[in-house]
Amino acid sequence: MPQLRLALAQVNPCVGDLPGNTDLVVHWTREAAQAGAHVVVFPEMVVTGYPVEDLVLRVSFAHASRRALDGLAGRLADAGCADVAAVVGYVDADAAGVRNAVAVLHGGAVVARQYKHHLPNYGVFDEQRYFLPGDALTIVRLHGVDVGMVICEDIWQDGGPIAALGRAGVDLIVSPNASPYEANKDDVRLPLVGRRAREAGAPIAYVNQTGGQDELVFDGDSMVVGRDGELLARAPQFVDHLMVVDLELTGAPERVAGRVGEFDVRRTIVSDRPVPAYEPLRFPGVVEPLSDAAEVWSALVTGLRDYVHKNGFRTVVLGLSGGIDSAVAAALAVDALGADAVYGVSMPSNYSSAHSRSDAAESAERTGMHFEVRPIADMVDVFVTQLGLTGIAEENVQARCRGVTLMGLSNQHGHLVLATGNKTELAVGYSTIYGDAVGGFAPIKDVPKTLVWELARWRNAEADKRGERPPIPENSISKPPSAELRPDQLDTDSLPPYGLLDAVLDGYIEGDRGFQDLVELGFSPELVTRVLRMVDAAEYKRRQYPPGTKTTLKAFGRDRRLPITNAWREGAS
Amino acid sequence: MPQLRLALAQVNPCVGDLPGNTDLVVHWTREAAQAGAHVVVFPEMVVTGYPVEDLVLRVSFAHASRRALDGLAGRLADAGCADVAAVVGYVDADAAGVRNAVAVLHGGAVVARQYKHHLPNYGVFDEQRYFLPGDALTIVRLHGVDVGMVICEDIWQDGGPIAALGRAGVDLIVSPNASPYEANKDDVRLPLVGRRAREAGAPIAYVNQTGGQDELVFDGDSMVVGRDGELLARAPQFVDHLMVVDLELTGAPERVAGRVGEFDVRRTIVSDRPVPAYEPLRFPGVVEPLSDAAEVWSALVTGLRDYVHKNGFRTVVLGLSGGIDSAVAAALAVDALGADAVYGVSMPSNYSSAHSRSDAAESAERTGMHFEVRPIADMVDVFVTQLGLTGIAEENVQARCRGVTLMGLSNQHGHLVLATGNKTELAVGYSTIYGDAVGGFAPIKDVPKTLVWELARWRNAEADKRGERPPIPENSISKPPSAELRPDQLDTDSLPPYGLLDAVLDGYIEGDRGFQDLVELGFSPELVTRVLRMVDAAEYKRRQYPPGTKTTLKAFGRDRRLPITNAWREGAS
Repeated sequence: MPQLRLALAQVNPCVGDLPGNTDLVVHWTREAAQAGAHVVVFPEMVVTGYPVEDLVLRVSFAHASRRALDGLAGRLADAGCADVAAVVGYVDADAAGVRNAVAVLHGGAVVARQYKHHLPNYGVFDEQRYFLPGDALTIVRLHGVDVGMVICEDIWQDGGPIAALGRAGVDLIVSPNASPYEANKDDVRLPLVGRRAREAGAPIAYVNQTGGQDELVFDGDSMVVGRDGELLARAPQFVDHLMVVDLELTGAPERVAGRVGEFDVRRTIVSDRPVPAYEPLRFPGVVEPLSDAAEVWSALVTGLRDYVHKNGFRTVVLGLSGGIDSAVAAALAVDALGADAVYGVSMPSNYSSAHSRSDAAESAERTGMHFEVRPIADMVDVFVTQLGLTGIAEENVQARCRGVTLMGLSNQHGHLVLATGNKTELAVGYSTIYGDAVGGFAPIKDVPKTLVWELARWRNAEADKRGERPPIPENSISKPPSAELRPDQLDTDSLPPYGLLDAVLDGYIEGDRGFQDLVELGFSPELVTRVLRMVDAAEYKRRQYPPGTKTTLKAFGRDRRLPITNAWREGAS
Repeated sequence: MPQLRLALAQVNPCVGDLPGNTDLVVHWTREAAQAGAHVVVFPEMVVTGYPVEDLVLRVSFAHASRRALDGLAGRLADAGCADVAAVVGYVDADAAGVRNAVAVLHGGAVVARQYKHHLPNYGVFDEQRYFLPGDALTIVRLHGVDVGMVICEDIWQDGGPIAALGRAGVDLIVSPNASPYEANKDDVRLPLVGRRAREAGAPIAYVNQTGGQDELVFDGDSMVVGRDGELLARAPQFVDHLMVVDLELTGAPERVAGRVGEFDVRRTIVSDRPVPAYEPLRFPGVVEPLSDAAEVWSALVTGLRDYVHKNGFRTVVLGLSGGIDSAVAAALAVDALGADAVYGVSMPSNYSSAHSRSDAAESAERTGMHFEVRPIADMVDVFVTQLGLTGIAEENVQARCRGVTLMGLSNQHGHLVLATGNKTELAVGYSTIYGDAVGGFAPIKDVPKTLVWELARWRNAEADKRGERPPIPENSISKPPSAELRPDQLDTDSLPPYGLLDAVLDGYIEGDRGFQDLVELGFSPELVTRVLRMVDAAEYKRRQYPPGTKTTLKAFGRDRRLPITNAWREGAS
């Protein structure tokens, strides 16, 4: 049986950093060569990063991507990797237009190119805005092994390019991806890749990138699945990793070129000579997926870390209210950046309770971050007195004086401000625009309140397990939540209980369910109406909220695009 | 020659307001019937408003649109309009999916449906995210006249549905549109519609909606073009209007059904009996298009008026600095809402010049809006002293105290806050986030600084012509612009001269030109590098800026989608 040593390079490129990303390809191809690999597979668009959005519409950028790819072939040969076939994602541009592409680099040249067929245009994806679809399938023979290539979305299509590769005859399929994390997506990917391998009658090597890009996080989770769909190897989630796997390939029953279904199949022979058989086969094993909570926590840490670092910041500042949201955001920041890069500020007003001050201090003390107290009473007093503010106007001015304080410290000391709001709050508009909504990044923006509590308990338990001090004050977890903008205020004065609220929001936002549907799920019509009105009315606030890591099926932002001016009200009928 | 009286209903629906929008259809169909029209044509998706964005993904909404359309047929008959064929845009939904559709309502029933073929997925449009494309062309015979229908983008396609209708044979084509305004678009539309009419060998009635929807404004500009491409009638821009036109129809040389090119052509006969010949023919004439400045001004007034009113506000508040931007924004607000609905606030700091105060007062006095002075020195002082702010941090805190002041007045009195920044400022990040960037709407967000001056001069000259007092203080127009955040500060301390700056920005933003391209246009490499760096670095600020009316080819927001995390830097090579 023919053999092949395959390396899956699960790496973290940065959008737009063509020199840095091509360096990454050279570095990891060299590592793959040293490990004796014959083929190394990189993620989708690794040369440009993903998603590059409208950068691709700028001709100078698209051409630079193509040039960078062409230059890579020579660089790899110069680096002594001429014998390794590197499968590298990039943006291709010629007179006909721009394409999402991968190329096979070998012996100092580009020996094959493959364009993406299915261009996702839903959720966070706008690929039909940018790319022409491919209409051909390229099969490359390496050491006598026929290798087909499919890019990301192409693997999600029943009876699509993979089925056609199966009919044409391939020994192996490699699939470069930039597949953003969302909760439980790993549970969907594995059976999908297995099904496709069976459809093609060939093993599939699935490579996904790591790292954060604005609101998206990529979880890696690269894997190799055998022709019968069985999992042969799986890489760890969220970490850069080169997974090296030896494959024994059964071989396709026939090998066709020309028209197969809607595709034009082209075959390129790079090398017909089989690799010498070797033993024992290298088999990296299957890394167990993270638990649900660990997975979300890792995504949040990755998203925050990469937003801060890739945007040139080293430190962050955030308000510590003593509540659960800011305590969790602070713990995440310390995990992402280290305690020395995190500055917590307690900003008590006249309505702040004693426990809010002591819980804030305890949060800082437990994590080891910097801490200072900046009372806002004097600022608030001038605004309230001079402008004659009362009621909501007076409540909001407190939040806004905190916002101005954090921005002042940011401007003075160069910290990035973190907004600490959660998804539930953002959904129902329970936040003050230009107040607690101030920030360059919002780490838990896409985490529902009930999950914030769950993550806090999980993170503390993890610390206990490791014999470390739990980072989140017990009292921040257990006390009833309050915005503390007026005396004895509680969140439940304005909102339904969070368990119930999150369940309705999950149906309305994640599930896009209407009124009738939600009532049929068992929620009272009054509750549904009340919650949906709050969500609809808060769209303008969400539009000005900072970006934050997507973790759910449908994050606010590019994932859920609703008009602000919108008279549609869900109701009976 | 067969005759037909056609009514073009150029109306202003509201997104999501299904009851209000169907009322609009009933009202204007009744008017059309009273004018003796045989056919009345409404804009694209008039039942739902446009664009509805992700509302369409909610099954309850898509079904409600279909139900509203089906209900309209009966309502029109009940209103005595059974004999008028109403061509009504809506969202169609069935088991197969969701479509951008128009229906012909006649005699109390839906007698035909037409789906949109070409789904725009560029600029502000995401229609491939939502809709299935049509594959059939429906031709309806009304009084012996064969009428074809094409929706918006379909009219922009060479050799598309219109060419196919021409080959199949039609006497008349009606085209419902929701075509957003941008400068000079009217100059493109007329030759386009003329070319299509010649391609089809049939007259075209082009109907576009009016009004504002978030960042978009629709300018109407409905027209009828003869089979030789000559303009027969043109409606006024930006105003709701029913244009009634009598047509004499030459008739197609042949009439085919079945397969024509890629389309399945279906013919429906509603009535074969010609209308009795009448004279004289009704001919509404051709309204001259507005001047360039008048057109932009009207778009800005419309966008601001509809954002405020459709979102349930009656009054607005804005900061008056004495500068050109706030003076123009104030004049726009007064034109849009009336002087009594506009509240101007002068918020001098220690660095504010005497003329900034007097020019602000004069702006209020000239327009008749409400005016008050709220000095910010005390607020600024507390922040600066307690937080030890210096330099940029001290400059920004002034802008932020103004932001908190405006939001306090907004919360206390229920005004919508207007942000007064222009496109140039937003492009290069010459504004303070959470400071002067505070607001629910930003009326001149998409107006370059040089055009702000031009509009100011034009608006004042218009007032002179009408014998009214010019609304914008002469000194606000003529003095050198300054942010006044430190002593003797001028914009030119930080920025290139505005004429030069706007020229580079036009190339980089509107034209998507890269470094090399801009240098070849004659700009110095240093200038290009400096401006492009400023634009790239300000993406995070733009992301949190309020919405404002699109007037250029490429507005910030959904029209130009760039990553915040972005290491790509345009440069030589």
